[in-house]
Formats: sequence, C-alpha cells, structure tokens
Amino acid sequence: MMEMNTFLPARLIKEYRKMGLRKYRTQKGKMILEGVQLVKEALLAEVELESLLYTPQFAARPVAEELLAGVGRGRAFSVDPITFASIAQTETPQGVVAIARVPERRTDIFFQKKGFYLILDRIQDPGNLGTIIRTAAAASVSGIILLQGTTDPYSPKVLRSSMGGFFYIPIVHEDDLPDWFENIKKQEIQLIAADPRGDIPYYNINFTKPTAVLIGNESGGVGKMLLEKAEIKAYIPLKGKFNILNAAVAAAAFILENQRQRDLHLI
Amino acid sequence: MMEMNTFLPARLIKEYRKMGLRKYRTQKGKMILEGVQLVKEALLAEVELESLLYTPQFAARPVAEELLAGVGRGRAFSVDPITFASIAQTETPQGVVAIARVPERRTDIFFQKKGFYLILDRIQDPGNLGTIIRTAAAASVSGIILLQGTTDPYSPKVLRSSMGGFFYIPIVHEDDLPDWFENIKKQEIQLIAADPRGDIPYYNINFTKPTAVLIGNESGGVGKMLLEKAEIKAYIPLKGKFNILNAAVAAAAFILENQRQRDLHLI
Repeated sequence: MMEMNTFLPARLIKEYRKMGLRKYRTQKGKMILEGVQLVKEALLAEVELESLLYTPQFAARPVAEELLAGVGRGRAFSVDPITFASIAQTETPQGVVAIARVPERRTDIFFQKKGFYLILDRIQDPGNLGTIIRTAAAASVSGIILLQGTTDPYSPKVLRSSMGGFFYIPIVHEDDLPDWFENIKKQEIQLIAADPRGDIPYYNINFTKPTAVLIGNESGGVGKMLLEKAEIKAYIPLKGKFNILNAAVAAAAFILENQRQRDLHLI
Repeated sequence: MMEMNTFLPARLIKEYRKMGLRKYRTQKGKMILEGVQLVKEALLAEVELESLLYTPQFAARPVAEELLAGVGRGRAFSVDPITFASIAQTETPQGVVAIARVPERRTDIFFQKKGFYLILDRIQDPGNLGTIIRTAAAASVSGIILLQGTTDPYSPKVLRSSMGGFFYIPIVHEDDLPDWFENIKKQEIQLIAADPRGDIPYYNINFTKPTAVLIGNESGGVGKMLLEKAEIKAYIPLKGKFNILNAAVAAAAFILENQRQRDLHLI
C-alpha cells in the first residue's frame, strides 16, 4: 500500500498549507518547490525532497516519469486537483510541488581564491532577488551575501524566479558571517559599490583582483554607511533621457562584465 | 466649481474600470498609468493626460503638488479611497492613476543612421517586456519591434515594470512596418539572433555596423524560421552548472555591450 503511495497523511496537506508562512518555513528550515522546473533542478542538484505531491493530470505528462523516479520511495503522493489548487501558490499550477530542506550555509568555505561575490543591500522585490540569483548561478559567481532588510530568499516567489539557480550557489545572511566586512578586508577582496553617481564605469573595474560588488535597494541604492566603506564606486554609463535601471539588470551588468574579462583572459 | 475638481463624472469611473480590459484599451488607443513614478515620467516626457484621479491621502504627500500642477485644468479629480481601491490594479495602490493616449507609432522615422534595434519574438512575461523597455530606454536603443505573439506593451503590468521607459523609445508592432525584414536588409542593418547554441560570444559582435538583435521567447528562444534569417547567432558565455538566463537579462547583455563599445569609441 505505502509503495503505491495511495495513502496521503492528513498532516502533509496541513504542512503544505503552512509553508505559505515565512515564520513556519524559517522555524522548520524548509522550502517549497512548486512547478516542473524547480523540482527538476532540485533533483539534478541532488537535493533530497522530503515529500512531493502531484495531480493525476501531471502524472499523465511525459516529464512525470523521469521526475517521479527521482523522488525517494514512499515520498510522492497523488492528490486530487481541488486539494492541489488549495495548496498551490501560483495562479496556473503545474500539478507538482515538493518540500525540501533549505541548504546548509557553508560559511566555512564561503570565501574562495580569486572569488567574485555579490553583496545585496535591502533588495525588496522577490522577482529581482530571484533573477539576481539566477544570473549569478549561470555565470559562476562564488557566493552571495544578503544584508539585513533583503527579502526572504526562501520565499516561493524568489525560488520560482531563480528557476533553481538557488541550488548552485552559496547564499548566506550577514548574520552567518560574523563581521563580513572584516572578512573581506582580511581576504584582500576589493569592495565595489554599484552607484549611479560613482567614479568609474563598471567596465573599467579590474576584475583581476578578488572582488565583491554591493548592489543596493531598488529605490534608494546602496546605503550611505556602506557607500563610505567601498573602495570604488562604479556606475553603468547610460545615454538615454531616462536613466534608472532595474536592480537585477544592474547586477547583471557587473556579473557579465566580470565573466567577459575572465573569458578573454584579461584576468 | 469645475476648477475645484469636486465634480467627478460617473462615466470617468466607468472608463477607469474598463481600462483593465485589453480589448477596450486597444479600441480606444489609451493606456492607464498607475502610481507616482509612471505619472511623473509621463509629465516629464510631455505626454498629455486625459484625466487623473487621486485620493485625499495622496494630495497630502509632498510629491502631489508638483504632480497635480502638471495636469491640465479640470482634468484631475479627487476620489474617495474605497472607489480608488476598486479602480486600482496594484495591491498597494499609491493613490494616483491617470489615462493617456498611447503614443503614435512613428514608423516613418523608425530607422535611423547608426541605429541599434531590438526585435522581440514572443516575449510572454509582462515583467520581462517592461524591464527590456526600461533598459533599452536608459541605454538609448533606437527602437523596438514587437513580433506577433509578444505580450501587450500597453498592459498595466508592462507599463509599471517599464517605469516609464516606454515614453522615451519608439515601439512598433511588426504589422506597423510592412515587411520589417526587407526594411532591415535595405538599410544594411546586421541581423543578430541571441541564441544559446550560437557561433560567437555577444561581446565579439561588431557594433560599428547598424545592428538589430533578435531576443526570443522565454522557454523556446528565437523561432526556427527567424534563426535562419539571422546573419549571426550570438550567445552569452556562461560558466555555471546552470545556464539559463532570464530574457530581460539576456537582452541587457546585448544592450549594455553595444553601449560599452560606443562609450569606448570602438565604434
């Protein structure tokens, strides 16, 4: 019976409902993965899924077989579409959702040789944070530090717009690294602030050196105290009449320029 | 009495409600601008507002004076917060919303000397389209062509995430330019497709030549027939284990590299 996964414990449905609450997720150290892309990426990254729910409609899709085979025995449960819709966070659910433990924060191995880091100062929009994580994971950023006031990286919206990039990159909170600033100085990592009123264009940064780039809040930019700590303030030259970039696009400019310099062996 | 704007015609409330419908907006050639940023940018760009509604709470904010002064006489109306909430499209409305005419599509002046264009092939996500418009406006892209199947550029979501970049850049539908492809060939504009399986890295494109970059659909990329039409297929080199970029970030890579080459007088 258990092997057929026909028995769905009522406490599981309750747990999926509670996963909408940040407080519950944080207490339990768990995250909710909704949709084909996220579940697939979790399995590729060898993240263990505690449980998985799917609808009969999902089971009929070609992608289902590969996906359900990757989940441990007795951990995948078929649920009726109405119950599923009551659990799903998206408007057009894809019929698959899973719970997994949030990755451990390996702060001991956070800083690497020739690393390139992002430090995010109060990024508010979950879509922006997810897109930054996605771009960073694709372009081999060494790690991301989230400063106080940044939106919850384990919220369903951030996970979805990260498209699973989340599984491939170390992400820590500033509280996890006692005095991140001291750490950066000790490791001789140059600290650069993205700042529209900066001194040099972002493409004149010498990425030969280990580098950390501070990306600031969507409306206020990098905080004043932090700006003073940065060795270099770099801007993105813009020639339009209109000159505000989205925070995720600004982060991408620095990430991709670092990648370009590495590709061209300028480093 | 009219000067005090105390008389709010009932038909106006009805019109704001109807503006949620794409069909109505398209028929009337109007767009809805919600929030401080969009209304402010419209006034800066000298776009004429047909009407504007605001709440008493908004009128008390410092930004209100400047903003309301920019609206023509007898066109701004105070409405109670409950009526306003029933009109607003955002979850946390800022208490100001306006209706304006969609800009005329100046296809006669669309192609320019040494131009740099984006051609968007079935971009689906309103947030992505808005972000692309925002980045393009900030970095002086000459114009954007929207191919069939691209999401409505006048939808409230696109307008909001464009942050008003929309007002500063010519945007046309492919139907507006009879045979855009012939036009591009005639003007000797090189046609480049953004393609993860492309031949050269995006930063090796020679932006000295007038250039148009094709950006494709979020899941399928640039369509097959279009790919064959492109002279060059260019990719964004990624070194992560994970290699999917958001469409707005991919567009930004091309836009900012074009800007970088222009800044450095490589062009």
